[in-house]
Amino acid sequence: LLNHPFYQQIKKNTAHCQNNICLGLDPDLSKIPNHFPSDIKGLTSFLEQVIKNTTDIVIAYKPNISFFEGLGIPGLKLLENIRKWIPATLPMIIDAKRGDIGNTSQMQARYIFDYFGADAVTLHPYMGLDSLEPFFNYKQKYSFILALTSNPGAADFEKISLANNQTLYQYVYQKGLSWLNKYGNIGFVVGATQQELKKLRALDQKSLFLIPGVGAQGGDYFQSIQDGANKDGLCLINMSRSLLYASKETDFLDSTRKKISNYTIQS
Amino acid sequence: LLNHPFYQQIKKNTAHCQNNICLGLDPDLSKIPNHFPSDIKGLTSFLEQVIKNTTDIVIAYKPNISFFEGLGIPGLKLLENIRKWIPATLPMIIDAKRGDIGNTSQMQARYIFDYFGADAVTLHPYMGLDSLEPFFNYKQKYSFILALTSNPGAADFEKISLANNQTLYQYVYQKGLSWLNKYGNIGFVVGATQQELKKLRALDQKSLFLIPGVGAQGGDYFQSIQDGANKDGLCLINMSRSLLYASKETDFLDSTRKKISNYTIQS
Repeated sequence: LLNHPFYQQIKKNTAHCQNNICLGLDPDLSKIPNHFPSDIKGLTSFLEQVIKNTTDIVIAYKPNISFFEGLGIPGLKLLENIRKWIPATLPMIIDAKRGDIGNTSQMQARYIFDYFGADAVTLHPYMGLDSLEPFFNYKQKYSFILALTSNPGAADFEKISLANNQTLYQYVYQKGLSWLNKYGNIGFVVGATQQELKKLRALDQKSLFLIPGVGAQGGDYFQSIQDGANKDGLCLINMSRSLLYASKETDFLDSTRKKISNYTIQS
Repeated sequence: LLNHPFYQQIKKNTAHCQNNICLGLDPDLSKIPNHFPSDIKGLTSFLEQVIKNTTDIVIAYKPNISFFEGLGIPGLKLLENIRKWIPATLPMIIDAKRGDIGNTSQMQARYIFDYFGADAVTLHPYMGLDSLEPFFNYKQKYSFILALTSNPGAADFEKISLANNQTLYQYVYQKGLSWLNKYGNIGFVVGATQQELKKLRALDQKSLFLIPGVGAQGGDYFQSIQDGANKDGLCLINMSRSLLYASKETDFLDSTRKKISNYTIQS
């Protein structure tokens, strides 16, 4: 785990940026600055500028593939381009929430890792180990399993109590930790609006958390690091809309950089 | 539920075909007949011929989007074409296993329903109701929630026991039935290699099951219908590889039709 190239890169980038920010890329035509045309070309130009002007101040990027898919095949072509703008030292996590029977997951892994060149992916745990293993078997890549998410629906299944007195998300986390010991390339999605972050961290000091729900969704950044960082001070706090669309005006790059500077680790 | 256009169409098609076969479309370059070039053009031509020669003998089609994604953007362009070959009276279920926070699921629903023109989709339940609702809100469309799958990993989470003595998949099913009562457009994926099919059916006589695991995965077709069909005799038995790749020779269309004819309901 600690020698994995993805882990090492996150460690280096965190030391360099002095923050834990993973910039979420959720392209939305209605939110880009006014001076860009409200079409795929405008969006492409906007994203290219944002990425090229943040590579020194974020530790990773997380394109949300569904927002690209929402634009159809032109959107997926845009996602193909993104890898070219992100330097190899900046991990690209495709938020895809995949997981299916083995031969299908194999295709999904090929799409996310080989076709788009992602360094990491997010996965639905419901179907169990053989649905996740084709991703784990990409030894140089990293997989983040959904444990606890930050939406109200987390109460429906993730938080139900099992016969062994754990909640489902605790059990998923525990199973995931045993897989991490075997495969060495597994992290967890843990929602930041949840007090449970601290409790999961207490059970293990090594694993990497990808923490959504900070920013537009209301979680607190510094509290999330305090509760969710591992023993090396590492975690990925994902912020998308609140940083990406910091301004509708021509000062948007400055606005995004200024906002990110508010999140520098206080030492 | 019983008046929903998807349900009505499945009912009509079952009466017409006298079978319950949903033809799974899992494009695989290594499996198409030898006389097709082993490239995207060959695959396109193969799929077009298969679809156009089966519209009178299957009740629905289920493209597995991951197999198209595995071919990259050319694969997704092929998926775009498929809707043109499938008559409007033949429902197209895109097996996508999606589900995310609300604004992301909204994009996913747009992609599957609006962009590709699917009539139905498969969904991961893990993140709960608000992750599924954007799909349910497409009133004319249908959503199949994963309950119990046919892979070994189903034992990891789907079959664990809850504090209330149900298994997780039973609980997902029960929650899903309550949502079905509200939204009217929800079915369930229930693996055919599982004896549990019968038990889930016993709890409700109305809901539609989409049953994978028959054919290449080893489940029995007639037994699955007996155990899984609802009070109208309806269910969707998905078969992909065993029908699609029935022959590697030029007789492939005849072979597929002949195989399908073995599954006519015995009356």
